[in-house]
Amino acid sequence: MKLLKSHKTFEGKTEFWSHPSSTTKTEMKFSTFIPDGEIRGCLIWLSGLTCTEENFITKAGAQKYLSERKLMVIAPDTSPRGLNLPGEHDSYDFGSGASFYVNATVKPYSDHYKMYDYINEELYSLIKSEFKVSKISIFGHSMGGHGALVIGLKNPGKYQSISAFSPIVNPILAPWGVKAFTGYLGEDKSAWKSYDATELVKAGNKHPAKILIHQGTHDEFLIRELLTTHLMDAASEVNQEIEIVFPDGYDHSYYFISSFMEEHIRHHGKYLS
Amino acid sequence: MKLLKSHKTFEGKTEFWSHPSSTTKTEMKFSTFIPDGEIRGCLIWLSGLTCTEENFITKAGAQKYLSERKLMVIAPDTSPRGLNLPGEHDSYDFGSGASFYVNATVKPYSDHYKMYDYINEELYSLIKSEFKVSKISIFGHSMGGHGALVIGLKNPGKYQSISAFSPIVNPILAPWGVKAFTGYLGEDKSAWKSYDATELVKAGNKHPAKILIHQGTHDEFLIRELLTTHLMDAASEVNQEIEIVFPDGYDHSYYFISSFMEEHIRHHGKYLS
Repeated sequence: MKLLKSHKTFEGKTEFWSHPSSTTKTEMKFSTFIPDGEIRGCLIWLSGLTCTEENFITKAGAQKYLSERKLMVIAPDTSPRGLNLPGEHDSYDFGSGASFYVNATVKPYSDHYKMYDYINEELYSLIKSEFKVSKISIFGHSMGGHGALVIGLKNPGKYQSISAFSPIVNPILAPWGVKAFTGYLGEDKSAWKSYDATELVKAGNKHPAKILIHQGTHDEFLIRELLTTHLMDAASEVNQEIEIVFPDGYDHSYYFISSFMEEHIRHHGKYLS
Repeated sequence: MKLLKSHKTFEGKTEFWSHPSSTTKTEMKFSTFIPDGEIRGCLIWLSGLTCTEENFITKAGAQKYLSERKLMVIAPDTSPRGLNLPGEHDSYDFGSGASFYVNATVKPYSDHYKMYDYINEELYSLIKSEFKVSKISIFGHSMGGHGALVIGLKNPGKYQSISAFSPIVNPILAPWGVKAFTGYLGEDKSAWKSYDATELVKAGNKHPAKILIHQGTHDEFLIRELLTTHLMDAASEVNQEIEIVFPDGYDHSYYFISSFMEEHIRHHGKYLS
């Protein structure tokens, strides 16, 4: 691991790192906030389409609340970089900046776009080995909210809690998801369901902690891409405890995320402390 | 005034605006946060070198504290845009993004770079006429901290209070200031002093409110460009009330600014409420 930048922030440090990933076979970057003194737990933040490791750590305003609760956060980049695969840089919703946190099975993406394993195995192990933190939770935004729900629901023993802002909860029925899953996983839709939070809940995947979701009512992607009510209905059928809040007037931006960041960190803090 | 974007944020709105400026003879942009309900007062934020109207409003984490105190903020761009004056875009510390908030007297900058008047007259009037707010304070960062100190000290009756993060307090002795003042004001250094906070205090300019300054000890520009102790010494000679805090380990970035934003908004809130 190489430390690229370090900035004292509240009672801790905002830092930027890179490391050679054995999973993606590329150099991967991530940002962290590390509170001074003992670290009680770690939150993995997964960002949305077009983001890098920078968006969350500069715009979400999380450091104050993490500092107060002695929690660290790690926010990885949203895809491998430095490659030049066919079509990788042609659109904002596929390829670079748009991994959808799956393990691609379609060549040549399958050689590098293993972001599910990168997060759930490599980054997860790195948190334990390099930062010496054992309690880990996961949250994210939009495509990253989808990633957090999927990774958390499939691995309830590894994550203390899950939350999301404006997640894509049923990607197999959303244009963004259909495009990405076709490109990464192929035309056979049976493989898609294991990366769809609503389908996972329907199939019996559960998490012991209450899942917290905030979804702004003025989000321009709500009806077409996010499909929040699909997860709400599935969870209620199988008694997965979930709290979905629809704050009035908020959109899909980091201005919305920052407004409810304290609530999410407080939520995870209950399970991490 | 044209509203470009609006995002609900905490209990209020983050907005982006443009308007034709009669002072700079260009289209000028600014961002605002406007709390819901009655507005108790307005803070003008002046940004530093290379910034636009976006940096503060996306990175400083101010909206929470402004929302709680029913204060608005207005953060203008740091220079005129859309021109192509000789040398205007050649360096980060002169021309576009680097107005230093002076009224240029050297041709052709003097036709447009009237940022002192833009802030202190045009934007000030616009706050009163368009946003109906009568109590106004001013603060800023680095070059913008210099701007806030100079504008506030020269117009104590117009601003309830002044504060700054990492300000350039004695620009006539700093390489950044010397370069900018030579370009905007010419070689005659006697004209420079009226845009230098330390010189203004020495010459008897005072503000009735305590001036608050935060200056990180690990700021890479502290010794060469910011010269904080010069203002400290001048203020103590003339009994200008000033509190200069040197928090240990912080640098020149928005990570530092965000860490102490609440203290500055609380400070101004005392004078604006």
